[in-house]
Amino acid sequence: MGNLKNDLLLRTALGEKTERTPVWLMRQAGRVLPQYRKVREKLKDFKELVKTPEAACEVTIQPVDILGVDAAIIFSDILVVPEAMGLPYKMIESKGPWFENTIQDIKDIEKLKIANPYEELNYVLEAIKLTKLELNNRVPLIGFAGAPWTIFSYMVEGQGSKNFSKAKKMLYTQPDWSHALLKKITATTLAYLKAQINAGANIVQLFDSWAGDLSPDMYKEFALPYINEICNGIDEAPVIVFSRGAYFARTELAKLKCNVIGLDWTMNIKETRSIIGNNKTLQGNMDPCLLYADYDVIKKETIKMLNLFGPSKHIANLGHGIQPDTDADKVKCFIETVKAHQFELQYA
Amino acid sequence: MGNLKNDLLLRTALGEKTERTPVWLMRQAGRVLPQYRKVREKLKDFKELVKTPEAACEVTIQPVDILGVDAAIIFSDILVVPEAMGLPYKMIESKGPWFENTIQDIKDIEKLKIANPYEELNYVLEAIKLTKLELNNRVPLIGFAGAPWTIFSYMVEGQGSKNFSKAKKMLYTQPDWSHALLKKITATTLAYLKAQINAGANIVQLFDSWAGDLSPDMYKEFALPYINEICNGIDEAPVIVFSRGAYFARTELAKLKCNVIGLDWTMNIKETRSIIGNNKTLQGNMDPCLLYADYDVIKKETIKMLNLFGPSKHIANLGHGIQPDTDADKVKCFIETVKAHQFELQYA
Repeated sequence: MGNLKNDLLLRTALGEKTERTPVWLMRQAGRVLPQYRKVREKLKDFKELVKTPEAACEVTIQPVDILGVDAAIIFSDILVVPEAMGLPYKMIESKGPWFENTIQDIKDIEKLKIANPYEELNYVLEAIKLTKLELNNRVPLIGFAGAPWTIFSYMVEGQGSKNFSKAKKMLYTQPDWSHALLKKITATTLAYLKAQINAGANIVQLFDSWAGDLSPDMYKEFALPYINEICNGIDEAPVIVFSRGAYFARTELAKLKCNVIGLDWTMNIKETRSIIGNNKTLQGNMDPCLLYADYDVIKKETIKMLNLFGPSKHIANLGHGIQPDTDADKVKCFIETVKAHQFELQYA
Repeated sequence: MGNLKNDLLLRTALGEKTERTPVWLMRQAGRVLPQYRKVREKLKDFKELVKTPEAACEVTIQPVDILGVDAAIIFSDILVVPEAMGLPYKMIESKGPWFENTIQDIKDIEKLKIANPYEELNYVLEAIKLTKLELNNRVPLIGFAGAPWTIFSYMVEGQGSKNFSKAKKMLYTQPDWSHALLKKITATTLAYLKAQINAGANIVQLFDSWAGDLSPDMYKEFALPYINEICNGIDEAPVIVFSRGAYFARTELAKLKCNVIGLDWTMNIKETRSIIGNNKTLQGNMDPCLLYADYDVIKKETIKMLNLFGPSKHIANLGHGIQPDTDADKVKCFIETVKAHQFELQYA
């Protein structure tokens, strides 16, 4: 894997047997680290952090130094894509993202551009290049983007939502418009992920955070084909697909041209392995709230999870992003338990 | 089924073959009907509507008259239970429920009482009695309560939440306190449901709205045993259990002493039937957002759903509460499609 000193994550993603299970955490760079909060406080807001390559680089590398994870993930936001397409947004403290303009009809969709990542998203590429330089090949760097349906939801709702009823209303009432919008998002996302790899990302992850709000039929019509298109378009690096809540589509997810499938914490590990088969690496899937528990409980549950996944084709992670109010020492406990784990002879 | 003119729902719940599939909708009494909004406007707030038996009775019966559903469900709120136990709440317009005091430690739990439904919740029982009188045996009346884990969540969080991290933190860090609280909620809920049946409810439903936020292990430790206790305690009327998102526990749900299992809209109908077996009636499970679609789409998808469930042991419903901004005529379309449906010969 090139000159990487620690390439456990990449080799595991590609299905190779490795010395131990690699580990990283979704949202590992962020409020959970006091060192992150210090960097963040010096800047105007979250968006400035995302748009300043030096600052993004610094907080991207913090979890490698402080937590000892086996990969860095570039500090950014899935909503940079709608912004690059023409819908700017604000991140409102303790409330979440907010778009002044949203997608209401076909005219709004026609006005959107397919972004050129080397222009509108160049600040992310610069952050990746700088991070690669600073990481100095210690661990791989993960690039990422939101999956089209999740990005679509934000563009229509204009903010987070309990059940994404406005976005789903558009799917049900305007399927043609919906597909037109999803196509534009897909084209942008594919170009963007390729540019991230070109800038130095060693592996990329697609986050479909709102997959579980769709019925199985709707997921197959409006989410899966676009994830499929993105997976088919990427040959340059391994791809991780994390469709949170899409338990009903695991058979179909297994057929994607991707290397890794992310599991959320509601998914039974053995059952999911039997549905997905042995051709994919699985990632996950501890309940993020477990990291509130006492150290002995965290250790016990982490070891239980590791044994259920087994010693190969598993990237240890949470089943969703880390809770911002988690104690960093509890996060370390999870990571160190993974790194220290010895599998029993049954696996040898 | 006593003197009921339309007892389709009860006979189907008990597993009998009926002339056609019965239909009702979760949250059918509410903002979707202009007639409801008129009653509501005359009162101070939502809570006054819940606490005034005449008004609750009126809006409970509206969907029977206007929509033609096969059952009424008493207009109330799952949060009357925490209030009866000592935690009053407000319903804040367009924001949702809000509790001034929440459960933080064992002292808060010790202060809570196991409510006597004939005292603290007598207004609900009065509403049920009045509704039975006014319904005049046209259709059955459904009583309901929140399942213990869902009620626990609100008591700890004090409001709705994206991921119920405070409530889950208590489960992970204070399992003993959590069980103590769940036991008190369970005792209140069981007595409350029995009192509802005694007052005239013909069938009762348990709503576990936040079941899907728990991992399978946590669901089995903190949610399922209390649902089980409630089911075991009720012999007086059929019981419906709706654990939204608990797809991972369908095998265990099938073992409950209840008559009906509710499915949310993400659950594959054929697969769920094969997991649950033929001893239970299934209820559900159209995506509430489907009712935004055009009439022909609603009809087509409703018929598809009916055929997947088949002609017996199915109560047609949505897979979650109706969206308040749904057009009442679309709701009627769903109901009338169910009522008019003729199953093909293959089922004869």
